[in-house]
Amino acid sequence: MAVSYDPKLFDFKIVASDGNARAGILKTPHGEIETPVYMPVGTLGTVKAVTHREVEEIGYNIILGNTYHLYLRPGLEVIKSAGGLHKFISWKGAILTDSGGFQVFSLARKKGQASVEVTEEGVIFRDHLAGDLHLFTPEFVAYAEEIIGADFIMPLDVVVPYPTSYEHARDALDRTIRWLKRFIDARTRQDQALFGIVQGAFWKELRRESALKTLEYDPYLFGYAIGGLSVGESAEIMYEMTEVVSEFLPWKKPRYLMGVGKPENLIESVERGIDMFDCVFPTRVARTGTLYTTYGKLNIGNRRFAKDFSPPDPECDCYTCRTYSRAYLRHLFNVDEITAYILNTIHNLSFYRRLMKQMREAIIRGEFQKWKKSFYEKYFSQKF
Amino acid sequence: MAVSYDPKLFDFKIVASDGNARAGILKTPHGEIETPVYMPVGTLGTVKAVTHREVEEIGYNIILGNTYHLYLRPGLEVIKSAGGLHKFISWKGAILTDSGGFQVFSLARKKGQASVEVTEEGVIFRDHLAGDLHLFTPEFVAYAEEIIGADFIMPLDVVVPYPTSYEHARDALDRTIRWLKRFIDARTRQDQALFGIVQGAFWKELRRESALKTLEYDPYLFGYAIGGLSVGESAEIMYEMTEVVSEFLPWKKPRYLMGVGKPENLIESVERGIDMFDCVFPTRVARTGTLYTTYGKLNIGNRRFAKDFSPPDPECDCYTCRTYSRAYLRHLFNVDEITAYILNTIHNLSFYRRLMKQMREAIIRGEFQKWKKSFYEKYFSQKF
Repeated sequence: MAVSYDPKLFDFKIVASDGNARAGILKTPHGEIETPVYMPVGTLGTVKAVTHREVEEIGYNIILGNTYHLYLRPGLEVIKSAGGLHKFISWKGAILTDSGGFQVFSLARKKGQASVEVTEEGVIFRDHLAGDLHLFTPEFVAYAEEIIGADFIMPLDVVVPYPTSYEHARDALDRTIRWLKRFIDARTRQDQALFGIVQGAFWKELRRESALKTLEYDPYLFGYAIGGLSVGESAEIMYEMTEVVSEFLPWKKPRYLMGVGKPENLIESVERGIDMFDCVFPTRVARTGTLYTTYGKLNIGNRRFAKDFSPPDPECDCYTCRTYSRAYLRHLFNVDEITAYILNTIHNLSFYRRLMKQMREAIIRGEFQKWKKSFYEKYFSQKF
Repeated sequence: MAVSYDPKLFDFKIVASDGNARAGILKTPHGEIETPVYMPVGTLGTVKAVTHREVEEIGYNIILGNTYHLYLRPGLEVIKSAGGLHKFISWKGAILTDSGGFQVFSLARKKGQASVEVTEEGVIFRDHLAGDLHLFTPEFVAYAEEIIGADFIMPLDVVVPYPTSYEHARDALDRTIRWLKRFIDARTRQDQALFGIVQGAFWKELRRESALKTLEYDPYLFGYAIGGLSVGESAEIMYEMTEVVSEFLPWKKPRYLMGVGKPENLIESVERGIDMFDCVFPTRVARTGTLYTTYGKLNIGNRRFAKDFSPPDPECDCYTCRTYSRAYLRHLFNVDEITAYILNTIHNLSFYRRLMKQMREAIIRGEFQKWKKSFYEKYFSQKF
């Protein structure tokens, strides 16, 4: 007997909408989350370069963990002994774990060897560390995600690269659905809420078909994720796919666009009805010296900032912008101090938090389009 | 006309003593500092791997900056434009800058080339970055330290390696004194307080001679530093030299043992009358996985901590110990997360802060020996 989520523990309420854009509240066993929400990525049980305290102070109460990475290190045995990931990492907010599907396909591909073998049973892959062979089946991933114990969990899916063939995309879609059924049959915990993942690559009809087939499992699904995007296709294709999927998803359930993205991607996707996002961008580019600001992306290592004693983003009230100058941050970055990564990450995470908050408020005011226009005017001006 | 420090801005008051150990208060234009004090090293304008906020929260209100490193990057021009180092790095507490003497000799030596040339005028050295040639004279270092604008400043001295010859040590001692005079003659700011540096390598009579010759400049000196130790000699020799120097220094002025050291070095030196310390140890070893705890040094990467869910140091109340387990810190360290460096550094700095505070309280209670015995009993037990 397949289980679903406990409706006393999980809920999604839409408090306002403006066109297809929605403002809502996600209820979880670890607090309530305002949507639209960007979720910082805590791959190995930490958001890179910042402590939990900083993540919380910026205003985040949900982070991601990666099943693939946590399975490899520290391993399920350690997480199980700790009593789950929340306890192991001492994070009080909510957690979402992906299924490892994306990593299995993307990290394996990077090594340039045919190291992934997909069968109906599951996927055999070489890890990116020692190159050892492992098997992920839908049932094993369900087991792993129950040990990890995240609030939101994802089923194992088959991710296809860009570009790909129609036949390959079609097969992957169908297998993703069969694996979803097996995942649902295997899971046992009602204090976790499962998302279905819509695949279908870059064809509208496949996206629609995937959405409709996923919908057949609606009683077991708390929300819907859109997978297989932001893998190299153009932003236009991504928006098109998001739009067609959104159209077929139930209005009242949360929609999560996996692995997306840049500030403008988030805005365009919220406009198309997306509620949840995750992406390594803000933290990753922080470590290479890129700061997101009201007036666009700023490369802090640039010589022009050597004696610029103004804050990185004058309209930002994060610890970094309240305290330090561009000149100081440039210096720290150029001499490769760890504090450069910390302070840049604090700022970028704050920028994303403010972006989502502004969108939410604009939706509630019914002024999403007006807000978007004014945001873009500044953001693309590069007037630092 | 040589200037000294403004006695309205700087003061040192001994509030209690126990044997040769003293508890005092240093008054500076940027706050009052309780002694004995360990000062975290902020080489390039930041304590490595932690933000100023964390340094402050742990309880530090004085940090070091390194003249040699800051001269190279970001350069004096940038610091001058910012209005000094306090403003450039947004640090509200006090700052002490060394003279670059130690770096000029030690970093140059590392490169294995005869790249340092000492003349009566000053020292010509190759930097450790591009290998460019630079000249530091006592006058130029005074100029540089006035631009940097630290509260406490050090004169350019001649540092000798361990082991060394008596003649070399003697020459270095005399030149250090002549350079001190030139440094005093060159400086102009009364809102900075200068320390004399006692050299003399590893001979008691040279240490005494250096102390007495430095004392001739007492009206211009706020305090006395002991230089040229912790360069490879045994702890016994270091304590012996510290003891003989302390004996000849005026009781009422602060004493600073440069570049020292391990917890036991600090304890033994406080017992011998030292008030101030700086050392990269607690921050540096944090980044290689060593945690100082009540029960000794702990290597967090060790397999034995894989499922140890107790705090790193049960008697520590720092953010790291209050929040995380050894198992989690081990994981972060083993997967090379930046947060491992952050959390380990927070803990080690907290350990050093608590150590100094405990010593101060023991001195005030008149129970330094008793405290020391009980500290060592636990610290050398390795009973984690």
